[in-house]
Amino acid sequence: MSMTLYTAEASIGWASHIALEESGLDYTAVALDLSKQQQSTDNYLKINAKARVPSLVVSDGVITETPAILSFIAQLAPDSPVGLPDNIFQQAAINSFNNYLCSTVHVAHAHKFRGSRWVDDPASQKALTENVPNTMSVCFDLIEADLLLGPWVHGELFTISDAYLYRIACWMEGDGVKVKNYPKVLAHREAMDKRASVIAVKEFFSSVPGA
Amino acid sequence: MSMTLYTAEASIGWASHIALEESGLDYTAVALDLSKQQQSTDNYLKINAKARVPSLVVSDGVITETPAILSFIAQLAPDSPVGLPDNIFQQAAINSFNNYLCSTVHVAHAHKFRGSRWVDDPASQKALTENVPNTMSVCFDLIEADLLLGPWVHGELFTISDAYLYRIACWMEGDGVKVKNYPKVLAHREAMDKRASVIAVKEFFSSVPGA
Repeated sequence: MSMTLYTAEASIGWASHIALEESGLDYTAVALDLSKQQQSTDNYLKINAKARVPSLVVSDGVITETPAILSFIAQLAPDSPVGLPDNIFQQAAINSFNNYLCSTVHVAHAHKFRGSRWVDDPASQKALTENVPNTMSVCFDLIEADLLLGPWVHGELFTISDAYLYRIACWMEGDGVKVKNYPKVLAHREAMDKRASVIAVKEFFSSVPGA
Repeated sequence: MSMTLYTAEASIGWASHIALEESGLDYTAVALDLSKQQQSTDNYLKINAKARVPSLVVSDGVITETPAILSFIAQLAPDSPVGLPDNIFQQAAINSFNNYLCSTVHVAHAHKFRGSRWVDDPASQKALTENVPNTMSVCFDLIEADLLLGPWVHGELFTISDAYLYRIACWMEGDGVKVKNYPKVLAHREAMDKRASVIAVKEFFSSVPGA
């Protein structure tokens, strides 16, 4: 089955992209230029009416939302580093972590540049932006203290959660989070930086004009 | 395996509660009184450090985040009305819908009363609250036009997504959404209201003092 991942450099698409690299599955990545609103063209809206990335186009249709794409990749590649554990409680722990990232941490980050999703007036948008260091730090406090078991998110087992946390942890400095307070998260990020999957995704974006 | 669901009347906990009823699994529901901050007691924080409901306590530990709890229930009860389809693309469609609810629709709703999560100043919190009818309507526009296939979310097959959509659709009037614009969502809500699972959850809350 050939798959196409629609992603963008300044996006959460990296998580799915890294998982695809880890999976060993055959796929093609297509980079959209969000600064040119390529996520809102008529052609792309036919793929994803939400005008967001990532979208994973597979033979049966289109999958959107990062946790759903990650779980699908994990199911397609059971013997790869991102294959799911057999135990359904461990699967639930992976889902729980990924759902926390999508429903709380990514949302906290998105209030920085996309306050216009929530309020119209510039003063309120500015207030949302200014509070991002606080809300993101609350999230990373919980991740550092409770959620990231180490060395990988769920302990010794590498999972799709590691690809997802990595991408969001790369936003810490830009979001005004004091990274020195999060040594476990930093060690995780450094370990991820050494993986061939992360290196491949970085090379992809460095080779795409305008991505 | 005996399970305990921690939930609250004015919460998304209903989705997991309805799924448990549909599953036929053995469980106990415990209602927290959010007006008394029972989600922030020392005892509850040991269960869920995020101070949120729902939490599902099972023999192996605690599962948090609605989509993760729903998927776990579905996996535990494969032959029940909330059992998952075998096809992994269909499973991905369920995950995608549920992740959209948790990362976008529930967040839009939560800006009404919980703007303090995002901004400190009262004027910005008021702006967030006042915009909820708009942001929730954008979500229901997409659900009505594209996501809700009918009669159930994913077509003829009843799934965990139906329990989740039902709970969020019950918030429409309170969130200032013009329900007459969403006949498919209303028909779905009415069909859910007739199910024994929904009736049982309503009876549970009507019998819990202070819930």
